[in-house]
Amino acid sequence: MYPEDSSVEGGVLTIGGCDSRALAREFGTPAYVVAEADLRARARGFIRALAERHGGPGEVVFASKAFPCTAVLRVFAEEGLGCDVASGGELHLALRAGFTPERLYLHGNAKSEAELAMALEAGVGTIVLDNEGEADRLAALDGGPRLLARVVPGVDADTHEHILTGQAGSKFGMAPDVARALAARVDLAGLHMHIGSQLRSLDPYRRAIAALAAVGDFEVYDLGGGLGVPYVDGDDVVAADDWVAGMVAAAHAELGEGKSLVLEPGRALVATAGVTLYTVESVKPGLAGETIVAVDGGMSDNLRPMLYGAAYSAALAGRMDGGGSVSTVVGKHCESGDVLVRDVALPDPRPGDVLVTPVTGAYGHAMASNYNGVPRPPVIFCSGGDARVVVRRETYEDLHGRDV
Amino acid sequence: MYPEDSSVEGGVLTIGGCDSRALAREFGTPAYVVAEADLRARARGFIRALAERHGGPGEVVFASKAFPCTAVLRVFAEEGLGCDVASGGELHLALRAGFTPERLYLHGNAKSEAELAMALEAGVGTIVLDNEGEADRLAALDGGPRLLARVVPGVDADTHEHILTGQAGSKFGMAPDVARALAARVDLAGLHMHIGSQLRSLDPYRRAIAALAAVGDFEVYDLGGGLGVPYVDGDDVVAADDWVAGMVAAAHAELGEGKSLVLEPGRALVATAGVTLYTVESVKPGLAGETIVAVDGGMSDNLRPMLYGAAYSAALAGRMDGGGSVSTVVGKHCESGDVLVRDVALPDPRPGDVLVTPVTGAYGHAMASNYNGVPRPPVIFCSGGDARVVVRRETYEDLHGRDV
Repeated sequence: MYPEDSSVEGGVLTIGGCDSRALAREFGTPAYVVAEADLRARARGFIRALAERHGGPGEVVFASKAFPCTAVLRVFAEEGLGCDVASGGELHLALRAGFTPERLYLHGNAKSEAELAMALEAGVGTIVLDNEGEADRLAALDGGPRLLARVVPGVDADTHEHILTGQAGSKFGMAPDVARALAARVDLAGLHMHIGSQLRSLDPYRRAIAALAAVGDFEVYDLGGGLGVPYVDGDDVVAADDWVAGMVAAAHAELGEGKSLVLEPGRALVATAGVTLYTVESVKPGLAGETIVAVDGGMSDNLRPMLYGAAYSAALAGRMDGGGSVSTVVGKHCESGDVLVRDVALPDPRPGDVLVTPVTGAYGHAMASNYNGVPRPPVIFCSGGDARVVVRRETYEDLHGRDV
Repeated sequence: MYPEDSSVEGGVLTIGGCDSRALAREFGTPAYVVAEADLRARARGFIRALAERHGGPGEVVFASKAFPCTAVLRVFAEEGLGCDVASGGELHLALRAGFTPERLYLHGNAKSEAELAMALEAGVGTIVLDNEGEADRLAALDGGPRLLARVVPGVDADTHEHILTGQAGSKFGMAPDVARALAARVDLAGLHMHIGSQLRSLDPYRRAIAALAAVGDFEVYDLGGGLGVPYVDGDDVVAADDWVAGMVAAAHAELGEGKSLVLEPGRALVATAGVTLYTVESVKPGLAGETIVAVDGGMSDNLRPMLYGAAYSAALAGRMDGGGSVSTVVGKHCESGDVLVRDVALPDPRPGDVLVTPVTGAYGHAMASNYNGVPRPPVIFCSGGDARVVVRRETYEDLHGRDV
């Protein structure tokens, strides 16, 4: 679960050749630490897998909401990915990071007039229509971007209901018959689907692709993302190569082999590249006999445990050999739900220890807040033994930086 | 549920004498709009109720995590409240807003060395010890702040498990016997408890206060907050006056009448003062027959519906007369769970309408994020027909303002 280009030497975790305890000392905690090599390896893996499996035109697009950070976006622009944006802010970040506008896809179920105008002015390559009203707003355009329609395939995938998006009742997209009617009056290049996040099986994708086929014959099929990653030992997910192979095979079978296929991984490109370093602030017995290990971050830097009941693991960066008694790793926020990791074995944790939670590259920085007046952590890229801050830590002054 | 100093005239909502549609036009949406008069009225209400019920020394303290904004803190400092801080950042904000340090209470289950040092240097009046280790760190101090010990009374209150804090298994505080042992070796002025948030009954407070009494006899009892507010029609909560009366009566019965009593409301001081204004971006039929109304904000400005399944209501700011068909108000974020309000009647909502969600003064601004690259909203104070921006809206440039 730790990044490519990380290792354990003498019980100490190194990331991109950097001693993780030294990173904590130099940059403070909490800190998001990213192995740049992992980002690049995964981007190349997706591009290679798509090229190997699909003879026709195709594109791998980073769903930027997973890690909307200029340095991360720049890596993916360099590696030749496209980029998925779902707001004016994400569009602004992607352009700034160096993506060519033609490689950008504008998504969103509530695009504002200002966001549509911004996308057109920037020359965004593809706009994904969520609903008929949006099509009408864009209909007057001449020579505008390529248009796709987001279809709700009516498929239930097995994931947390918050991140399940392809089912009936979803707020996203349009029913197949609405898309069919829209195609009769608007020049649609193709269809888009995105059925959910952190999915562990190819089966719902296959059913959803079949539902797209029933809408009509198009040139482009954007099949979305949602591929799950392993967060804890024993998490059973589909490997990236197998996911691409399965998606392409289903597309060939249902849609034909010559179509332009777009894949939009987000989490699977960034989750494993990132770890979060914390400092243990207190260790005490809980009333139920467990050891409560409190660290200097929590729900403000990783909301997923509270939001989805998501499981993570943890280790002590200087004593990675494991073992020890069962601990609960809690954050510093004033909520009982601010628990980062439950039931993890930690070897005699003590105040001052550096604690690491792996697989925090996705949706940590993205969803960070200042809850309880906690400044948001820095993002630190590590590679070849060098560490560089790509996003600095917030300061207490930043907390009132927008005061008028 | 709308603020004091708000009204509906000709179907249009006014806040502090300001037309809410005009506010949306002038300041954009989403926007947090606060009726300053409501903040002041509630602060005065708590102070008055405590003075009426309790002859001994006492203090009402704002739990700043609910709305950590300089302008709000300044109002409460002016009104004579104390202030609860749970981090260096909250301490920084409270000092900046004009609270005298003696009126500050430093809480937290994971106080860092730096935060403790900052509190001592600032002259914070009271530090609430979470655990024995913290007591040891502070033991060497001479003439330091007044010390309280946070006790877990072992009481289950009826609220969402994320915000339930007084039960066995809580990450907060120490067991009664640990507090008793601590009192034998540290000069404790008193005890603190906080049993949960958004509580709807006095009964668990009474049981918890009885548990405090069993720990020993002290000078100060900080009984925490957690008083619920009504979020939707029919929400049955304890009125502020009744809550203060019940808390004081239980304290007198269990602890004696001459004790110094501290109450720490957060939500109950700020929730109702604030509303959020949005613009409707799209209206479409859902697959289940409902109307889906998508607005230009969502989980980035109000996380509570996703985090706790919290219910809110909504209305159209220009057609407050109500009626209409059943709608689901969804946000603009790329998550199915980003639903702000379910099953609300809205009269023929259309793109461009200003939609208002009341009771968003607590934990909206506090937990806001930049998820999906959405800039955080401004905070606008309204009073006497004048509106002033106290926190400006974030810009797209702010999204990468910490890039190095």
